[in-house]
Amino acid sequence: MRVDIGNALDRVATPGVPEDALDRLDDRVADAHARIEEGRAKNEHGYEALNLPETVDTDEIRAAVEPFEDSEYLLNVGIGGSALGAATLSAALDSDVEAYYLDNVDPEWVESILGDVDLSKTAVNVVSRSGTTAETLSNFLVVRDAMESAGVDWTERTWVTTGEEGNLRDLANKHDLPSLKVPDGVPGRFSVLSTVGLAAAALQGHDIDAIVEGAAAAEADLAPSLYESPAYAYGAVAYALDVRGAGINAMMPYEESLETFAEWYAQLWAESLGKDGLGQTPVRALGATDQHSQLQLYRAGPNDKMVTFVRAADREDTPIPETDLEGLSYLGGSSLGELLDAEFEATEASLAAADLPNVRIEIDSVDEYGLGELLYSMEAATVLAGELYDVDTFIQPAVEWGKKAARGLLGGGDFEEADAVADKTTLTIE
Amino acid sequence: MRVDIGNALDRVATPGVPEDALDRLDDRVADAHARIEEGRAKNEHGYEALNLPETVDTDEIRAAVEPFEDSEYLLNVGIGGSALGAATLSAALDSDVEAYYLDNVDPEWVESILGDVDLSKTAVNVVSRSGTTAETLSNFLVVRDAMESAGVDWTERTWVTTGEEGNLRDLANKHDLPSLKVPDGVPGRFSVLSTVGLAAAALQGHDIDAIVEGAAAAEADLAPSLYESPAYAYGAVAYALDVRGAGINAMMPYEESLETFAEWYAQLWAESLGKDGLGQTPVRALGATDQHSQLQLYRAGPNDKMVTFVRAADREDTPIPETDLEGLSYLGGSSLGELLDAEFEATEASLAAADLPNVRIEIDSVDEYGLGELLYSMEAATVLAGELYDVDTFIQPAVEWGKKAARGLLGGGDFEEADAVADKTTLTIE
Repeated sequence: MRVDIGNALDRVATPGVPEDALDRLDDRVADAHARIEEGRAKNEHGYEALNLPETVDTDEIRAAVEPFEDSEYLLNVGIGGSALGAATLSAALDSDVEAYYLDNVDPEWVESILGDVDLSKTAVNVVSRSGTTAETLSNFLVVRDAMESAGVDWTERTWVTTGEEGNLRDLANKHDLPSLKVPDGVPGRFSVLSTVGLAAAALQGHDIDAIVEGAAAAEADLAPSLYESPAYAYGAVAYALDVRGAGINAMMPYEESLETFAEWYAQLWAESLGKDGLGQTPVRALGATDQHSQLQLYRAGPNDKMVTFVRAADREDTPIPETDLEGLSYLGGSSLGELLDAEFEATEASLAAADLPNVRIEIDSVDEYGLGELLYSMEAATVLAGELYDVDTFIQPAVEWGKKAARGLLGGGDFEEADAVADKTTLTIE
Repeated sequence: MRVDIGNALDRVATPGVPEDALDRLDDRVADAHARIEEGRAKNEHGYEALNLPETVDTDEIRAAVEPFEDSEYLLNVGIGGSALGAATLSAALDSDVEAYYLDNVDPEWVESILGDVDLSKTAVNVVSRSGTTAETLSNFLVVRDAMESAGVDWTERTWVTTGEEGNLRDLANKHDLPSLKVPDGVPGRFSVLSTVGLAAAALQGHDIDAIVEGAAAAEADLAPSLYESPAYAYGAVAYALDVRGAGINAMMPYEESLETFAEWYAQLWAESLGKDGLGQTPVRALGATDQHSQLQLYRAGPNDKMVTFVRAADREDTPIPETDLEGLSYLGGSSLGELLDAEFEATEASLAAADLPNVRIEIDSVDEYGLGELLYSMEAATVLAGELYDVDTFIQPAVEWGKKAARGLLGGGDFEEADAVADKTTLTIE
């Protein structure tokens, strides 16, 4: 993986990072790296995620999904970190097993997915560390019911991915379901390289060892200097741009297959760093499509943004047929890939020409190895940024209020948060 | 449609709008409304979009797609405003005709879509006002070639949506293709209620007259006061929050079927208002899913955001089966829709409890009428906001630099912008 931070320097962009400030920041990167290495060595909560290339047991994962290898469909029932990592791999890699991620409780949408699959050929992965996530358990109950109605023995088609104890663990024991353990020290948004992210990939026939190898290569690149580690270069520069005014970070892959990656990254970055009044806001974008949607704002709006471009160096290409259409002969003999690359470089340059900071991330190709490298690097970048911001990267306390309120509204207990819902200030125009 | 701006008031949120400031802003709304009405009366560029409920000819649209009514698939070849409106309707409404939007030139993705459809049962809609959009014309050439290779007569399966003159118009004339005209005074991002947005919906069997009726109802609500027009209430409050520091606007529908609507809105808002150093940054979010991704940042990060919640009052629901799973009995007997609504209200209240501004938009249901109402209202809100910011809402000059650079890189002419691409400042870490 290569990270090019040239367009983030202050001789190109405003906000931009002066080179001597980058050198000074590099001392802080060295300290942060030492802290990260310490956390990893002691298996501290969260830091442990960066050890997954060594600790994950891919044989165990393959064994757990092996009973389901006749499946044509996968229903992954989980939300947030229990969905996005696996969904990123599913979206990026081709498979004959069609995967659906039930990560919302919209009833019409859930029903339409249940209508799309043949439940007798469907494997169900229920993913919840606690075993009590309301959305996930509700969806599981609905899926189980649908299987029973369709005459499908759900116990033959379900595995669970959960903690050592709790509802789902009990359920697995009672019905002798294959089960995988969510590793204790790994927050959901950092779990793509664990049982949580890799089991779906294994079921879909992907080479999960190659994913881990790619991650291990990125891990081997971690070093006490941003100039030596692509992951740290990215994390440090994004931080340095944020504190200089680029409070928005548009993650813009030029690969349709990486659209879900941008969502995964948005969770990782937002939930890890968004606390104590700090945190850069990730925006999911997609090249070349969003050139025709967001680029006007990026170039001519407030200079409070950085853009992160991501692309693969190699891909299958499609020639553009020759044409006699007026003014378009220049396209004939070219290819869609060349057009996409030209737009990538043109858009990158167009931001630089407007003094706007941007960073280029390049992997060799969108395959298992490249994804492992990219995902691990973004996790390491996030952990580094958390050290630089000095926030508690691995927790997400601000979401608890809403969970309690929702539970109270549904009669799941007495919560003062639920009372606040009724006190809403309204000023309705209709 | 109802817009509730209670949680945007300064007695709830920071930033928030004082009620007397809202009253003063209402005078500016009255002036802006007068300017908008003048623009509409004179059919000025852009303003004309708000006249579409009267000017669009739905019979003509139905007639143009009638030759393709045997189709099982639709390939809509267009990008930006030539895709997002139609795609929003396709995503929101069920149809037996499966629609694909070729709005990117990623070669692997284009090939995979061509592999998914039966080209002999596919209708192709090529949409480009100028007839020279590089991405669209390239994709069209690839699709045409694929049809020829598959032994399908592309001239029997294609209609074009374009301007009065140009490549696509010539092509339609030469091959006697059905054609629709992109209305002159309507920018792409405001074109959903025209030939550009409604033809795909007609092919998919949707009631496009009901879409127009919904839009007409929203149009009838436009008035010289934000207190009388839901659309203006939204536009005025989003503006008032932005200038008080909420530079980010997270558009968060609690309906999977409205996920593409959030993308459509993001283009409308970003490209219309992002200029002269101004413009609020739209962020696409989705409830309840993004509670487990973005909410931590929204609640505990910098207070530079507003959240726009959107939901439908009515929907089909799915009961949650009773369960003996420990601690989850409160879910049994409830429904997925009740859970989703509880989460909606809980999240809204959780932001208010953290002093963060948010607005609630409600339509009766996600159907043709409701979508017409919602889309027209967002367009009117955008036009109003453009008047309040005093920007030129209907142009997008900042994207031209990159278009020239890309064209130059592909050998389509001599452009100094292309030379700048080669001069990129690099600082690569690998």
